[in-house]
Formats: sequence, structure tokens, C-alpha cells
Amino acid sequence: MPISQLYPNTHPVVPIKACNPKNNDTGSKPKASPQLNRWSRARAIRSGRKLDRSSSRTQTQTLEPNQSPPTVSLDVDSDDAVSEDGSEFMAKSIYIVSDGTGWTAEHSVTAALGQFDYCLVDRGCPVSTHLFSGVDDVERLLEIIKQAVKENALLVYTLADSSLSSAAEKACKLWGVPSTNVLGPITEAIASHLGASPSGLPRGASRVPLSDDYFRRIEAIEFTIKQDDGASPQNLAKADIVLTGVSRTGKTPLSIYLAQKGYKVANVPIVMGLDMPKTLSQVDPKKVFGLTINQSVLQEIRRTRAKTMGLSSQSRTNYSEMDYIREELEFAGKLFAQNPVWPVIDVTAKAIEETAAVVLRLFHDRKHKCTMSRISKRY
Amino acid sequence: MPISQLYPNTHPVVPIKACNPKNNDTGSKPKASPQLNRWSRARAIRSGRKLDRSSSRTQTQTLEPNQSPPTVSLDVDSDDAVSEDGSEFMAKSIYIVSDGTGWTAEHSVTAALGQFDYCLVDRGCPVSTHLFSGVDDVERLLEIIKQAVKENALLVYTLADSSLSSAAEKACKLWGVPSTNVLGPITEAIASHLGASPSGLPRGASRVPLSDDYFRRIEAIEFTIKQDDGASPQNLAKADIVLTGVSRTGKTPLSIYLAQKGYKVANVPIVMGLDMPKTLSQVDPKKVFGLTINQSVLQEIRRTRAKTMGLSSQSRTNYSEMDYIREELEFAGKLFAQNPVWPVIDVTAKAIEETAAVVLRLFHDRKHKCTMSRISKRY
Repeated sequence: MPISQLYPNTHPVVPIKACNPKNNDTGSKPKASPQLNRWSRARAIRSGRKLDRSSSRTQTQTLEPNQSPPTVSLDVDSDDAVSEDGSEFMAKSIYIVSDGTGWTAEHSVTAALGQFDYCLVDRGCPVSTHLFSGVDDVERLLEIIKQAVKENALLVYTLADSSLSSAAEKACKLWGVPSTNVLGPITEAIASHLGASPSGLPRGASRVPLSDDYFRRIEAIEFTIKQDDGASPQNLAKADIVLTGVSRTGKTPLSIYLAQKGYKVANVPIVMGLDMPKTLSQVDPKKVFGLTINQSVLQEIRRTRAKTMGLSSQSRTNYSEMDYIREELEFAGKLFAQNPVWPVIDVTAKAIEETAAVVLRLFHDRKHKCTMSRISKRY
Repeated sequence: MPISQLYPNTHPVVPIKACNPKNNDTGSKPKASPQLNRWSRARAIRSGRKLDRSSSRTQTQTLEPNQSPPTVSLDVDSDDAVSEDGSEFMAKSIYIVSDGTGWTAEHSVTAALGQFDYCLVDRGCPVSTHLFSGVDDVERLLEIIKQAVKENALLVYTLADSSLSSAAEKACKLWGVPSTNVLGPITEAIASHLGASPSGLPRGASRVPLSDDYFRRIEAIEFTIKQDDGASPQNLAKADIVLTGVSRTGKTPLSIYLAQKGYKVANVPIVMGLDMPKTLSQVDPKKVFGLTINQSVLQEIRRTRAKTMGLSSQSRTNYSEMDYIREELEFAGKLFAQNPVWPVIDVTAKAIEETAAVVLRLFHDRKHKCTMSRISKRY
């Protein structure tokens, strides 16, 4: 069975699945839930069209460096391989090349692609990215650029080593590969700002990870994992940030995101009819944040969750039933009203990183009482 | 007591502490451990000089938008506020401005600063970054740029809204503020590559977070938290990636980092004298990765850990005693030798994201048997 049937309407495809249609795990995996399909449909309806035909874009690519001309093998239903207007679709490739981890370049590409979401999601102009990390010699670099020529790829690179970055620039010019040096301009600007030259070493080569910062981040992550889902309420006072909200308002992923930025986060679930831990009322209310969400969206998320968890139909009914959800959100709303100092953030249309941005903005504002909202750091 | 005395040799300073010297929590916090100081000293010794004087750079900044001329209040020991060559130090400011979360710009600045580590750590040229996120009107933007003028700051921006980005460009030119548009060039390159125009909307404004990808990432994070530290060995088969290594080889933070990229990760601790869970031998060995580390570095990490955990001196001795550590690493080495398919990664000089890059490169290579190492994704 082609993977496109197992994961309909997937956007973006998670790398593991997208790159590995022969993965044994996928064979036994059930079809994507009707709820997930529903979301994709809702998205399609919002955009004013049906997504059924062009929505499934999973494909495999087997590329060898010396093959010529480049052939991209498409493992996609022929039905799906046709875009809405009937023309054949072919994913546009973006090559990401780095002599470090490549995460910065990947992050930048993902962010920039966010500006083409309308096109990626709804208009069927698929993009595939290929991350080549740790590219630290010219031979390998040129091999990759040659492959980019064959595949008509855009090359996005972060090469700290100046001989590599100038080789990339020259080769791309010579061979007509469109390219962008992601960190080049910003590194130059910082060099001129600091009056210092860049080391030319990729991150890590010159860095000592065992800084105090390293230990503190690890501690924040470990603290946050241990505090997840209301565990150890006696430790709430030790948290930098406390998140509270009903089940499926995204407390856990938000906690983890913030922990990786070095904040110790505790999250306390709000469950209708259950008292909040007494320690919560003893915590500095300035570090507590309430999360809320649109009730219909919550219902969809909970239905999906209930299926994943294999809840019995009885508990599932309660958990994802609209009356129950409405009451539970009201219960949470009353708690928030009793604690007017807690900011309440509606997570409905927000990605984790957006909610995190709001939390941290408020967190720092409250600490510093700046009129100009900012998050400052020292290096 | 100035915070600089509480957190000597800190680099970079974690935002919470750096920005908040009046934080109540810090008042009761003990001095940084001798181990941590030792690391900083080791770093200084490697660089051929003592760090004692110029190492402490924590300071507060209280800035009001309309104050003029800009005054930066330095809450630093006068002893510390002098760089090695005797000249006064003044942190160079980098303003990060975004109409979205600003994480991409922040990530790029941090990555670019990596090239100036030699200068930041050892030469005493401190930098402070100030993140202004969600800047979505021209008035606020111009207010920030005016402040950047006063503070002689470098302005780094990601503004999806083209009227904002051109306003930033013009204002910076007019007022002589050095500036870099982080995503401008890459967005233009992608626009031309796809033959589509950028939406001009910051991320999130146009995005539906409830994609399949959203659910899968959340599931990966929740799975990974539940599997942490050898919990539920019966679920090992469900993991995409299994990490194994002795205590303090960074399994937990690495797991979480990979989980946020959408991989379900389980980690299994290796403890001398204890059998590994039977389920580990039943897992596809291609998804298992061994972690190892230099024994002296491990000892330092464990000593710090033992203090943090408040272990009794008896168990602390065992845990962080060199003989015990050597034996335990040998025990792990034997296990790795018995499982030659597991790649063994030395994490000694690697930051989490670097180890993650190695794991994912190997993971994808093994799945696809590409001769050209890459990680591919579809959008």
C-alpha cells in the first residue's frame, strides 16, 4: 500500500515517515483518524476548495551523487501526482548545506516557507528540503552542488569556513544554481559591530558545551519533565513559570519548549471537580499563566487524543463530550477569574512557539516593568 | 549582593537571571558550585589566560523608550566592569525585531555569535541581545529603532509585512543604524524558486497549527517524556530512536531535542551490574544509538549532579568516583561491543544539537542507504 494512502492530507510530512515508506512500523499503523482528515478538510474548506486530490504529497526520492541526468523516483499515487489544474506536480527542491549542524539554515528555511503556506497547503506547489550537515570539505560541497544542478534545486547554506563559503558562492555562480548564504550578512554585520573577525569555525568546533548555561538548561529540562502533568506539586515554588489549563491545552509541549530555553516550568492540570494543589496558591502569582482554547477545537483535539490513548468509550464520551468540555472550560474560567493576576492565553490559533513567545514576553515584562517589551540576554 | 557575585563566570547568562537581578529566588540561591567555577577556569586555562576579572558580565538594563540620551545602567562590580586591557567595557547591543515570534532571528543571531565565541568568552567583548517580538505596527517599530540609535545597537529583523520591513530599512538608513534583514534574501530566493509571492504574513497568522504534523510532534514529546530514564521498557519497540548510555551522557536532553523534531525517543540507562531490559534486544538494532563520554569530563559532570541532587556522601563517592566511572564506562563499552550495529557517539565535546545532528544523519542514512548523507522533508 502506498504510504500516501496511510497518511492522507499530511502537511508537512514528518521526516521519519516521509523519507521511509518501507518503514516496518508504518505497515501496521492504522489509517489516519477521521478527526485528522476532518481537520485537513476544515483547512481546505477555509481555503474555499476541496483538498482530496492534491493533498497527499508523500513521495520517496532515491538520489545517487553521480547519476546523470538526475532522476527523482516518485512513489505517489498517479491520482495524487496531479495538481488541481491537471498539470503534473513536481516538488521543488531546496538543498540546505552546512559545515555545522545545519539547524540554523533549516530553521530559516522553515520560517521563510511559512510565507508560502498559502501555496504549499492549498495550491499544491510541493517543496522538498534536503539537509546536508557537517559538510567540511570542498569535494563533498561541490558534489552536493553538482547534484543541486541536476535537481534544479535552490541552495541555502551556512558555511562558517570562509574558503567553503566562497567555494559555494563561486560554484553556484558558475553552474547557475540560485543560492543564499543565510548567515553571511548577519555575521558580517556583527563583525563590523563588534570590531572583531568571525572565527571561521562552525559552532561546536570552538565551543565548550559544559558552561554553566549548559548545566542550567539540562536542569530546566529535567525539572520540567519531572513536574509534567501536575507531578510533585510540592515543587511548584521552585519553578520559574507555572502553566495551568484543562487537558489538551498544550501545557506539556509548551513546558518543554520553554525548558529548552532554560526556564524551569511546572504545569498543573485543571480537572473539573478536583481541587487545585494548595501549593499553587502559595506560588508567586506573577509566574502563573492560564491557558484556554476554543471549545470546538478542544473537542476535536480530545477526540483524537481519546482514540490515540485507547480510552474506553465511556470515559471517551465524558472527556470529549461538548457539554463536559463546556463545563470544564467554565470551571477553568472561574479559577482564572479568582486569580486575576494570572494572564490567560488563548492557544486556539497558536503554534507552540507562538504561545511561548507570548508567555516569555509577559514573563519578562512583569519582572522588569519595562514600557518597551523585550527579552534581554547577555553573551 | 550583586548578582555578578552569585553567578561568576557565566556565559551566556540565562535570561531569567541575567535580566532580573531583583528576582526573589536568586537571593536565596547558593553560590555557583566550585565545579562550575572549575569548568570556567578550565576554559580560561585552555585559552591561555585567567578569566577571573572579566568573566562576570551580568548587568541590568533599564531602558525607557523616550529617554534621551540613552543611559544604560550597569549593575556590575566596578572590578568586573573593566576588561583585561584595562579599558572600560560596555556591552554592544543587538536589537532583534520581529512581527512574529522572533525565534528565527534570535536563532540566527545566536548562531552568528558562535563565530565570535573566542571574543565573547575570552577577550571580554560582551554583547547583549534584546528581543522585541510581535512588532506589528510602524509606530512601535520606529520607537524601537529610535532606541537602537540611542544605544548604538545593531538591528537584526525579520518582518514578514513588507511595509514594515521597508519602513525598517528606510529608518535604519536615515538614522544610520546598521541593520540586517535576516529572512529577506532567503524569502526572495524561495519566491523566485517557487514562482510565488510571499504572503507578507508573519508565521502563525496564516498557519493552522492543528495539522497532522502538530499532533505527531505532540505525541513524540509525550511519548519521549514517558519513556525517559528507562521507564516502560515494554514500549521500546514503539520508539523511532532508542538512546543508551551511562548516567550523565545527556540522554534526556538529547531525547527531548529529537522529540521536538517529531521523533519518538526512548532512552535506556546503562548501570553497572544491572541487566539491560530484555525488550532492548528485541528492538531493531538500527534504531539504537550508544552514547559515550570522556571519563574525566563525566566525573566533573557527575560531581556537579551529585551536589544538585543532594546525594549522600557515600552514594556520591560511588557515583562520581573515578574508579567507578572507569568501570562503568568499560561495562558500557562491552555492551556496545556486543551490539556492533549500534553506532556509538562520543558526546564529550558536543552540544546537544550537534549530537542530535549526528544521530539524525546516521538514522536517515541507515534507513535510506543514500551514498549522499541527507535528511529530507516534504512541505
